[in-house]
Amino acid sequence: MSGILFGVGLGPGDPDLMTVKAARLIREARVVAYPALPGTQSMARSIAADLIGPGVSEIEMSIPMTVERAPAQAAYDAAAAQISKHLESGENVVCLCEGDPFFYGSFMYLYARLSKDFSVEVVPGVTSVTACAALAGRPLVARNEVITVIPGPLPEEQLRSRIAQADTVVLMKVGRHLAKLRGVLRDLRLEDCAVYIERATLPDERRLPLADAPETAPYFSIILVTKGADPWL
Amino acid sequence: MSGILFGVGLGPGDPDLMTVKAARLIREARVVAYPALPGTQSMARSIAADLIGPGVSEIEMSIPMTVERAPAQAAYDAAAAQISKHLESGENVVCLCEGDPFFYGSFMYLYARLSKDFSVEVVPGVTSVTACAALAGRPLVARNEVITVIPGPLPEEQLRSRIAQADTVVLMKVGRHLAKLRGVLRDLRLEDCAVYIERATLPDERRLPLADAPETAPYFSIILVTKGADPWL
Repeated sequence: MSGILFGVGLGPGDPDLMTVKAARLIREARVVAYPALPGTQSMARSIAADLIGPGVSEIEMSIPMTVERAPAQAAYDAAAAQISKHLESGENVVCLCEGDPFFYGSFMYLYARLSKDFSVEVVPGVTSVTACAALAGRPLVARNEVITVIPGPLPEEQLRSRIAQADTVVLMKVGRHLAKLRGVLRDLRLEDCAVYIERATLPDERRLPLADAPETAPYFSIILVTKGADPWL
Repeated sequence: MSGILFGVGLGPGDPDLMTVKAARLIREARVVAYPALPGTQSMARSIAADLIGPGVSEIEMSIPMTVERAPAQAAYDAAAAQISKHLESGENVVCLCEGDPFFYGSFMYLYARLSKDFSVEVVPGVTSVTACAALAGRPLVARNEVITVIPGPLPEEQLRSRIAQADTVVLMKVGRHLAKLRGVLRDLRLEDCAVYIERATLPDERRLPLADAPETAPYFSIILVTKGADPWL
């Protein structure tokens, strides 16, 4: 009997926002895997740190974040091979995923490689989208409103038309695209209903009206644009 | 000192998918509030039932679900008044919310009424969107893909143009709109990448290719349309 691969969403950062199921799976794990940027500490591991017991085998997947996609894909190949060995020997592997595994999560690349040959269970997590709305006190969508989640790296023209059409917009992966995004929102006269949040639910989180946002933003930052279409709110 | 109102996301239905924080707040609550459709059992209460101790005060908010909005808004007025009394007397109130409180959640109407006068903390929850993706084994979005969440009751022409433009589409509140949605997806030649899920993560959940979906759907049903744009998946 092969082991099961669990892709476990950790939520936005505060360990208290992990699901009960995620916390239990991590506490009981004998093998955990997690992504890290080369040369940095894994954010996923840091969220789960208090639940990882001594003597647990750890697989750190060092994933380069480059525009060129082949290096990251080679890293996923190597990680999948390493995880396969544990699964083949009958051990379960718990893969730690920031946020939700299938929502801009790197776990989907392991899923694509391993779900044909092994049992894989995905445990959904709280995304940074709803965590930011909760922190900012901004209801996202009511009734028949549409919400669109848009990555900041998209070209300006695409951003402009997609933002203009949506009721509520969440701009993800703001990072070095902050100036461009701010320009687009200003052109669309949406700056006043936009809020900037970085490192939501972590001890060093920041939350500001977009107009007061810093010049440079970390990768884990979001802009929420709630146009406030529902007259009852 | 007034009490604090907590709007607590319960996740999609499986109590194991509640956050650690939600479970703790409910376990420690002396007053809980939850919505129910008139004449039915509250789904929110049923998700949290095992955590509600004896002797806890319960406020059932009976919210009519009608096209006309005034009756529901009157019900929120009455519930807000009842909750205010507890808060004024210094008691905390934990309001139970299916999914996430700010994602098509009725909690936002209490928030609008009470957040000016009282401390309100919103605890985000796992949404049915990522729970359905996990169950169906369908990664939602990778890299710079856009995801759009669209309520099924929208008019057909709006649905058509919004679905056509999006990378990944989640159709919520399918219910009695199933035939219309299926027609739109067939016209757009997207039926083959659509999956139908009802009552996700509950014991009686159903998950089918859209082509095999039943003729009638409950309110808590979703269609996921993943166009599979990422060539690495």
